[in-house]
Amino acid sequence: MKKHFAWLCTLFVMSQVYGQQPDKSLVRFVDPLIGTAKMGHTYPGATIPFGSIQLSPDTDTIPYAYQDKYNPEVYRYCAGYQYDDPTIVGFSHTHFSGTGHSDLGDFLMMPTIGELRLNPGTATDPDKGYRSRFSHDKELAEPAYYQVELLDYDIKAELTSSTRVGMHRYTFPETDQGHVILDLKSGIYPFEGKNVWTFLRIENDSLVTGYRQTQGWARTRTVYFALRFSKPFKSYGNKKYDDAQVYRGFWGRFDQSDNFPEIAGKEIRAYFDFDFQEGEAPLMAKMSISPVSTAGAIANMDMEMPHWDFDRVKNEGQQLWQDELSKIQVEMVDQNDMVNFYTSMYHAFLGPTVYMDADNTYRGLDQNVHMAKQFTNYTSFSLWDTYRALHPLFNIVQPERNSDMINSMLAHAEQSVHGMLPIWSHYANENWCMIGYHAVSVIADAMVKGVEGFDYQKGLDASIKTSNTLYFDGIDDYVNLGYVPEDKNSSSVSKTLEYAYDDWAISQMAAHLGNDSIASRYKERSKGFAHVYDSEIGFMRPKLSNGRWKEPFDPLDTHGQGFIEGNSWNYSLYVPHDPEALIQLMGGEKSFVSRLDSLFSMELPEKYFEKTEDITKEGIIGNYVHGNEPSHHVVYLYNWTNQPHKAQDKIRNILKTMYKNSPDGLGGNDDFGQMSAWYIFSALGFYPVAPGSTQYALGSPLVKSARIPLSNGKTFQVTTKNQGEDRAYVKAVYLNGKALKSPFIDHKDIIAGGVLEFHMDKKPAKTK
Amino acid sequence: MKKHFAWLCTLFVMSQVYGQQPDKSLVRFVDPLIGTAKMGHTYPGATIPFGSIQLSPDTDTIPYAYQDKYNPEVYRYCAGYQYDDPTIVGFSHTHFSGTGHSDLGDFLMMPTIGELRLNPGTATDPDKGYRSRFSHDKELAEPAYYQVELLDYDIKAELTSSTRVGMHRYTFPETDQGHVILDLKSGIYPFEGKNVWTFLRIENDSLVTGYRQTQGWARTRTVYFALRFSKPFKSYGNKKYDDAQVYRGFWGRFDQSDNFPEIAGKEIRAYFDFDFQEGEAPLMAKMSISPVSTAGAIANMDMEMPHWDFDRVKNEGQQLWQDELSKIQVEMVDQNDMVNFYTSMYHAFLGPTVYMDADNTYRGLDQNVHMAKQFTNYTSFSLWDTYRALHPLFNIVQPERNSDMINSMLAHAEQSVHGMLPIWSHYANENWCMIGYHAVSVIADAMVKGVEGFDYQKGLDASIKTSNTLYFDGIDDYVNLGYVPEDKNSSSVSKTLEYAYDDWAISQMAAHLGNDSIASRYKERSKGFAHVYDSEIGFMRPKLSNGRWKEPFDPLDTHGQGFIEGNSWNYSLYVPHDPEALIQLMGGEKSFVSRLDSLFSMELPEKYFEKTEDITKEGIIGNYVHGNEPSHHVVYLYNWTNQPHKAQDKIRNILKTMYKNSPDGLGGNDDFGQMSAWYIFSALGFYPVAPGSTQYALGSPLVKSARIPLSNGKTFQVTTKNQGEDRAYVKAVYLNGKALKSPFIDHKDIIAGGVLEFHMDKKPAKTK
Repeated sequence: MKKHFAWLCTLFVMSQVYGQQPDKSLVRFVDPLIGTAKMGHTYPGATIPFGSIQLSPDTDTIPYAYQDKYNPEVYRYCAGYQYDDPTIVGFSHTHFSGTGHSDLGDFLMMPTIGELRLNPGTATDPDKGYRSRFSHDKELAEPAYYQVELLDYDIKAELTSSTRVGMHRYTFPETDQGHVILDLKSGIYPFEGKNVWTFLRIENDSLVTGYRQTQGWARTRTVYFALRFSKPFKSYGNKKYDDAQVYRGFWGRFDQSDNFPEIAGKEIRAYFDFDFQEGEAPLMAKMSISPVSTAGAIANMDMEMPHWDFDRVKNEGQQLWQDELSKIQVEMVDQNDMVNFYTSMYHAFLGPTVYMDADNTYRGLDQNVHMAKQFTNYTSFSLWDTYRALHPLFNIVQPERNSDMINSMLAHAEQSVHGMLPIWSHYANENWCMIGYHAVSVIADAMVKGVEGFDYQKGLDASIKTSNTLYFDGIDDYVNLGYVPEDKNSSSVSKTLEYAYDDWAISQMAAHLGNDSIASRYKERSKGFAHVYDSEIGFMRPKLSNGRWKEPFDPLDTHGQGFIEGNSWNYSLYVPHDPEALIQLMGGEKSFVSRLDSLFSMELPEKYFEKTEDITKEGIIGNYVHGNEPSHHVVYLYNWTNQPHKAQDKIRNILKTMYKNSPDGLGGNDDFGQMSAWYIFSALGFYPVAPGSTQYALGSPLVKSARIPLSNGKTFQVTTKNQGEDRAYVKAVYLNGKALKSPFIDHKDIIAGGVLEFHMDKKPAKTK
Repeated sequence: MKKHFAWLCTLFVMSQVYGQQPDKSLVRFVDPLIGTAKMGHTYPGATIPFGSIQLSPDTDTIPYAYQDKYNPEVYRYCAGYQYDDPTIVGFSHTHFSGTGHSDLGDFLMMPTIGELRLNPGTATDPDKGYRSRFSHDKELAEPAYYQVELLDYDIKAELTSSTRVGMHRYTFPETDQGHVILDLKSGIYPFEGKNVWTFLRIENDSLVTGYRQTQGWARTRTVYFALRFSKPFKSYGNKKYDDAQVYRGFWGRFDQSDNFPEIAGKEIRAYFDFDFQEGEAPLMAKMSISPVSTAGAIANMDMEMPHWDFDRVKNEGQQLWQDELSKIQVEMVDQNDMVNFYTSMYHAFLGPTVYMDADNTYRGLDQNVHMAKQFTNYTSFSLWDTYRALHPLFNIVQPERNSDMINSMLAHAEQSVHGMLPIWSHYANENWCMIGYHAVSVIADAMVKGVEGFDYQKGLDASIKTSNTLYFDGIDDYVNLGYVPEDKNSSSVSKTLEYAYDDWAISQMAAHLGNDSIASRYKERSKGFAHVYDSEIGFMRPKLSNGRWKEPFDPLDTHGQGFIEGNSWNYSLYVPHDPEALIQLMGGEKSFVSRLDSLFSMELPEKYFEKTEDITKEGIIGNYVHGNEPSHHVVYLYNWTNQPHKAQDKIRNILKTMYKNSPDGLGGNDDFGQMSAWYIFSALGFYPVAPGSTQYALGSPLVKSARIPLSNGKTFQVTTKNQGEDRAYVKAVYLNGKALKSPFIDHKDIIAGGVLEFHMDKKPAKTK
């Protein structure tokens, strides 16, 4: 049913697009190049909202260097593209957006002319390989469209995409030595042995199929493809293999490198030759992918893109973006903020990505092929990041998708040996990246906010199972002792604090479903944070199995101190579900405010910065690390004190300094939209400090106004009075004309529709 | 429909078996140990007719040694078992029967006690590994049942099997250190890099799933499994991997070697621990396999073997064998001949093997999953061997299966890039083993013999396509020049001769379908044999592109002389479709008879034997090589001369000396039943010299009588008068009481039912 519905939607969009120029009023604010320099780890290529294909230029990849873990350069190529690089290796079809570790980069294609070169070459010596120099002057990135001149070949390359099919348009000069390279070895984060197997079949003179199977961050990942050219290739071939890797046997009778239609091995690099006349129509290529099979990839192509109209694909893609971006319509004082806002919206809607064929089949965690019944299956859940603000944002503007993301997580749990929800769901794999079991937060948040479309009881059951998977990350000790002991499990404090929050989320689900005994059991577990608070020093601190504190201990250090992606200064503030208790623990309101003040104002000695991950120096303010997620709620904690105005100027400062309209505009990894979701919420003036609760803490809106058409037909609006560059403080807030007495609103206030009006000021309102 | 039919058949067999002892009157003549010593390359383990599972002990495997190609020891372990070996490594689930090169040996299991050892050890130092000594005194091999005492562990191991499920029964002594090893690395013909990937999931305390993906003879082969134990294991684990091969990443947080449920990598060796009390019921294990998925493997197990009754599985399997063996009911003078006959029947029905799940899905040549609609899909077609006599035998006693084998080949062709029929179909792969395109012979033979159940036109179309696949083995030159030139393609004479025969088979198909132009075109192609006959020297001889003969040339040598698995002496006689023309080419009847006489009587100098493949010295008579296939029709060529009696004593001699009731009883590789099919036909007194014709040449029956109940309800009988050990000569032959005037019968004579009566004599009949 869904399949047909999706198809009807496509037809509907097509009918809208044909015969009229699409509305691109919001699309034009998006700059996909933002975040492509330094630490943003975004990619500039062509994709549609939540699309399976991310067709984007790769400027390089680097080998995995485990021993070099804390060298930030190791992670430079998470999205395949770095803005400062001088060359493009080619265009590959799958990319994570904003992650701090990485994978993918499947099926790299590169058009070249002249002497055939089948190795990529290096950025310092590009002429030895097939890569090409390029210039940002001759590059254009838009939603669903990317264009670049490949200077070494005088080829214009254009890219666009539908859900499962990427389309290339290459304008070649006249030549009898035109080539398209298809490099199945190339991938993001290659290492010796990463390519487990690759497979290539020349089905006919213009259709090629195959797959790439890798290990690595995803332990056993296979992506299938079909590649169709708009005109027949005149010849083809591939790099001769290394005999040591691939058995030849009776295949040795063939010259497999030259026009031989069936190739399998670990390092396939194929090429296709073409002639081009002067003025000849550009060569086009369609590449479709499938998690299931090459037959699935062909079917996806036939269904989604049964034509060669590049501009139609681009227009349909941009229309899809316009529709998604329109889900929050803002006015801003500064046009740069418009760009930052809609680029954040764009980044927020890049993932999780659709992970199933057009017929709803997909590969599950058990490596079997499953049918997604009545839902769309998604993958690439970077949950440690995205549970915080991205999924709560979806509960407002993408409730149907969020429900299907939860259905996808429940299917993952069903396919898991232990019935465990995903930690980081990655193309039919669990990659175990980061800590906690934050899928439960996503489920709890959707449940308490009344998002429909998934089975609440199944959600609770899977959450309970997950939270009792004893072999995972010290859960056994946590259940027994109330905390994870550092001598048995590293990053023990971060784990304890996050388990405590997750358990509170489970108690919220249980309470919502009226299961009081589970609710109270998990409420009890959620108090575990107190076990790791050392009141002597006033910080969260790693505890050993024997109950003693770890010695020595440095609350400013990020490594080896019981924390991950954050030091104790930041992580000690991580009790999002019970700030009041935290404030009491820390000696009351006054002392707590002073801690928060210090966090933002202290000067972090250089030596501590050197070992941080995933951020640039621009990603921190004092000792507050916005570039990593554990602090994302911190500034809003002022709302639980009598000085909420101290949040307001800081929020404005973060919005203005951590997000800029430039390629290096992101101060840290975008983390699959979490950084962007923080921006969107904060720019609107409110933030979900504890997903799983319906409460939002108010901050300082950056928008002049915002209009959010809801899926229930109502509209929620944010308006401001006296908004301006120098007006970060909030004097008063009115909900539907009624003054708010505390700096909070509830989800039902939003969902009911209405107007939230902020009165801005240059100075803070009087404190209580 | 078929699926349900198969299931009903199973139920029917079950109902026959329950409550009464199965009829094992013919089963008891089968000795699966015959051929397990030296060159027979058969396996002794448990399997049912054409079953997917061949559950058999492996006594060793050896590394592939390409450089050592002509050392016959390289191929010693084609079936995993060599009778003279002192130890058993374990029991694996897939084996080829009688092949000359090999693969498989998937999912080796071994029960052990005491200290856990996860390496197999060596035959010379078994105590260092998990293997065990064994003795033939404590070993028993029957159809569908194998039993052995593992002397090092005091464990009795018993094996039985259904189509897709193998059952193990292990009687352990009392121990708190019982183990079952599951070695996913182990396989037949391992070499560095053969294991591409393996995958293991502990689904619960008694169910394990996974797969093994290999390269090698089959380039990309994946077999999935499910393994269920009759009681829960108390703990489990696996060998720690080599970090250089398998990325650890975030999986590094787990001790994956100890009770960790999800393992993937290249060299998985797992173990499962059990306690056993004195007198406790034996441990049982069921291992099911699937070409599709682990879900398919579980479904196969649930469908085929939803119980733990070992004896029932054994009895059902033996009943299936009894039914198949009953398809030819013979009386013999010598009981040893009874053993040889029914063991040949057994070997003839070991393959091709069923290759699809219980729901009719299977993996195709294109690596996609397909549904076998209205047929059973088979794999392991060793066609260069089996087109000669095995498939013709099937056309008499297994016409339905043969038709489905053809349907399987047609599906393979549809899945092939070039629409090509299989050369050697191997678990969703083409392994390109040997030469010619003999699938066309199988199709032609079935067609002219009126075997129903496949699409004749499709058969002809696929045959034509195959014979014009220009990139394969010199077909381009063969089509243009009429022969394959040796300077461009080795074994050029063998290829030319076999293409000529195959093209004649295609012309037979076309004629049968009334397509005269195709028939005459291929009739013309079939005359290519004359191009490579050097009348100066009287031998088939390699010709170069320029039309000159290869110099120097030695018609006795097997290597580098333009032939494969046969020298020119033997191969010069390979024109099975036109012996008359061959006789003329060779100077007429008298000269031809004298050549045949010399072939059998000459003494082959030692140096020529040294470099032969796949045979023992017992496999040759003079210069006639029975152990390799190209000569299989040769002795019957006397029938085209005036001295057919010269065939008769030689046939009797071959039947008595090349097939013996002992482990080393086969003088060459059984080659998936071809050697056995030669025996069966020749023992019955007739042989299909040119499959694709309906003619059989009469020889010298070894049977006293034979009864063949046909699928059309009629019965064909062979009877003899005056049969005896010293009566090899045929005085007269009567078909339904009428004396035959020439030493031939036609397929319609068989299919019509009737009696073929041979009058035997001590001396040859007078020559014409």
